[in-house]
Amino acid sequence: MLPFAIVSLLVTVSQGCSRHSGAPDTAVESSYGSLWPLPQKVRFSSLSLKIRGSSFQIRDADESSAGPSCSLLKNSYRRYYEYIFCDGYPVVTSDESYELSVNQTYAVLKAPKVWGALRGLETFSQLLYEDEYGAKNSNLIEISDFPRFQHRGVLLDTSRHFLPIKVILANLEAMAMNKFNVFHWHIVDDPSFPYLSRTFPQLSQMKDLLTPCYSGPTPSGTFGPVNPILNTTYDFMNLLFKEISAVFPDPYVHLGGDEVDFECWKSNPDITKFMEQHSFGEDYSKLESFYIQKLLDIVTSTQKGYMIWQEVYDNGVKLKPDTLIQVWKGNQQQYQNEMAKITLSGYKTFLSSPWYLNRISYGQDWTSLYRADPHNFTGTDDQKKLVIGGEACMWGEYVDSTNLMPRMWPRASAVGERLWSAKDVTDVNDAYSRLAKHRCRMVERGIPAEPLFTSFCRHEYKGN
Amino acid sequence: MLPFAIVSLLVTVSQGCSRHSGAPDTAVESSYGSLWPLPQKVRFSSLSLKIRGSSFQIRDADESSAGPSCSLLKNSYRRYYEYIFCDGYPVVTSDESYELSVNQTYAVLKAPKVWGALRGLETFSQLLYEDEYGAKNSNLIEISDFPRFQHRGVLLDTSRHFLPIKVILANLEAMAMNKFNVFHWHIVDDPSFPYLSRTFPQLSQMKDLLTPCYSGPTPSGTFGPVNPILNTTYDFMNLLFKEISAVFPDPYVHLGGDEVDFECWKSNPDITKFMEQHSFGEDYSKLESFYIQKLLDIVTSTQKGYMIWQEVYDNGVKLKPDTLIQVWKGNQQQYQNEMAKITLSGYKTFLSSPWYLNRISYGQDWTSLYRADPHNFTGTDDQKKLVIGGEACMWGEYVDSTNLMPRMWPRASAVGERLWSAKDVTDVNDAYSRLAKHRCRMVERGIPAEPLFTSFCRHEYKGN
Repeated sequence: MLPFAIVSLLVTVSQGCSRHSGAPDTAVESSYGSLWPLPQKVRFSSLSLKIRGSSFQIRDADESSAGPSCSLLKNSYRRYYEYIFCDGYPVVTSDESYELSVNQTYAVLKAPKVWGALRGLETFSQLLYEDEYGAKNSNLIEISDFPRFQHRGVLLDTSRHFLPIKVILANLEAMAMNKFNVFHWHIVDDPSFPYLSRTFPQLSQMKDLLTPCYSGPTPSGTFGPVNPILNTTYDFMNLLFKEISAVFPDPYVHLGGDEVDFECWKSNPDITKFMEQHSFGEDYSKLESFYIQKLLDIVTSTQKGYMIWQEVYDNGVKLKPDTLIQVWKGNQQQYQNEMAKITLSGYKTFLSSPWYLNRISYGQDWTSLYRADPHNFTGTDDQKKLVIGGEACMWGEYVDSTNLMPRMWPRASAVGERLWSAKDVTDVNDAYSRLAKHRCRMVERGIPAEPLFTSFCRHEYKGN
Repeated sequence: MLPFAIVSLLVTVSQGCSRHSGAPDTAVESSYGSLWPLPQKVRFSSLSLKIRGSSFQIRDADESSAGPSCSLLKNSYRRYYEYIFCDGYPVVTSDESYELSVNQTYAVLKAPKVWGALRGLETFSQLLYEDEYGAKNSNLIEISDFPRFQHRGVLLDTSRHFLPIKVILANLEAMAMNKFNVFHWHIVDDPSFPYLSRTFPQLSQMKDLLTPCYSGPTPSGTFGPVNPILNTTYDFMNLLFKEISAVFPDPYVHLGGDEVDFECWKSNPDITKFMEQHSFGEDYSKLESFYIQKLLDIVTSTQKGYMIWQEVYDNGVKLKPDTLIQVWKGNQQQYQNEMAKITLSGYKTFLSSPWYLNRISYGQDWTSLYRADPHNFTGTDDQKKLVIGGEACMWGEYVDSTNLMPRMWPRASAVGERLWSAKDVTDVNDAYSRLAKHRCRMVERGIPAEPLFTSFCRHEYKGN
């Protein structure tokens, strides 16, 4: 429980209206100020308070379980938007709920866990606005809030282009401003392997691991996917995943498995022989399944859960019941069918298909990102419960530190609200009004979030 | 003439190949190193020289007409890539030609005017490359160079979003790196009027200038385009253009005239009466022409030339013979027809239709920018001579300081080479090879130019 000292002021707030078609009406003023994503329950008063920097303080309530020894919580009081980690790491099942009320004497933030207090501090910061003299104001308000989905992710890809740590950290800050809780780090891929292994320092150059491709009867000198027919491959993977499970505290590792090209395997006579021995016929997805199956067993032995791209499921690989399946393929009809199929077979899933943010187009494409919903498919309530959320993906072919942040934000913010706020929060005009202010707030906090449309911010971006 | 002290080294350079279809083959290594835009004539030697910083110098040749009193030229020797302005301003007809040769003792840069020396210094800087020990190298080379088109422009729009001076200056630097010579500054438009007039300090709020719109029989309280029926409008324009012609030394002013919305004029009873008096019927483009005609007369009296968007020509306004008409509408077939029509009627023109860089799409869209050519229409040689170049336009609806530079560069570089280099420089594989290096060079010089595709730079962008 975090109380704030406040003094009162009267303002009038008009009601928002609801329209759903086409581009948003930029004249609409949200009745929820600049809240983003919208808390689950809001009771908004027209009574507004003036908050004086000289007398304002954040302190532990008497009944708060977090005491003065929680130094990180102290730091977050100093800059209210810093994040609180008293100990441990959050997981997707962590309780992020909180209640926030601002009355004429105090702002009170109640949260069962520090993760909720963190979310509530972000929300509190969004309630403040400056009047024409620069004084900070807040309306009286009561907020009760919790995330709609557990898994609210952003994917960054460091294999196609180098991303400086500074950019990765800035992106994490922006994620917190938008109440995301999962960072999916696509560290390595074909173009480069920037993970530095302590067990295998020469990993980036280890060619023995990959399948030698053949040109007719002789090796061509090039290499394809991992060689799935050698025992040494699995000995290696065993040691590598032991290391990775120690380096990253997260309970899940993503095993990939998308877009595997079979051409090199087809060219290799040793692999052809192996295919015959295992009666795989001409079906190389069976060989892929054989490989993934062994990989899954290895990961299971490290006590980690795993996530996979939908192809692994589509190819019929045997999966642990708690496997998370990431849906990324197809148009709306196709991904809705896939979500229905996966949940019908009892697996947990989360959605990325409509949220490939690397795919840019001219105009306000955030509205289509905003309208997509992971629950919009035909299925029972039990099926819907197996949908744990979604992920905005920024693949790196055309993105590096020069353009990543403005391409990501505030477009990812649209996904952030979809995954946090209530299902019926779908008014794009109300959203536009808040999101335009939210993007200015991100800019003020040093995040180069691009504009939604013709507009200005009180404090424009100064970096370059 | 600018000599450089150099020492020699032997390397081998392979020949480039020529393919034109689809996406570029990223494996192709240009035989022209990283030159961008490609000089008109290049004789490339396989002999390479090592250049030592300790002994390298740039100095005036004995026969050079620029002496020690030219202090700006001295500054450019200190940082070779700084630009030289001994006095005066460049215009589109300025001589930008130069000859550059690197032999075993000297690099010699000959230019009739400082503008050419400026271009040659940029080219010289592009010849240098580091070997594996970080030493600077150049190949022996002979270059003879001049621009294919006079008018090589970039348009920035400061009306839809605020752009800090820092960003505008950085863009000018990038323009010089790409041998652009025209900055088309779209300072003001409907959304905002950031030009601060000394004659009319309250200009941004002067509502009397605009047409009062009507809702039925009464004024609605909103305003439309400039009111063309009042003498006070033209008195005002006369004073404003006098000021503008003094503030900007450029010989041309762009008068706009695109996308004028007639709805407000139609609603106003005074304008309806004026239309009747002048027998304009229902044709509001005649009223627009009436207005533009008076505006052109005013600008003519300031001794400036003028440019206009193609609609003004399309609407049949009487134009001075030296008017420049900017073509921006339509698909390839349509803009080629327009270029043919304009030049057939004897007017000078330049092209923007294929180069609206604000229109983004996923993938390597620089190749289509690169393939467009202002001379590709059906017409005589005399008609082609009336085509003075082109302009890359970055309209500001979705662009501000957070995303302008990476969206502009290196996409505008594709236009830069099309407008500078010879007509037959069209090999996208050769271009990809040089442009990828050129964008890394821009990044090294502090310009956040975005990547063309999966790649890395020796020095990645560090800003944020």
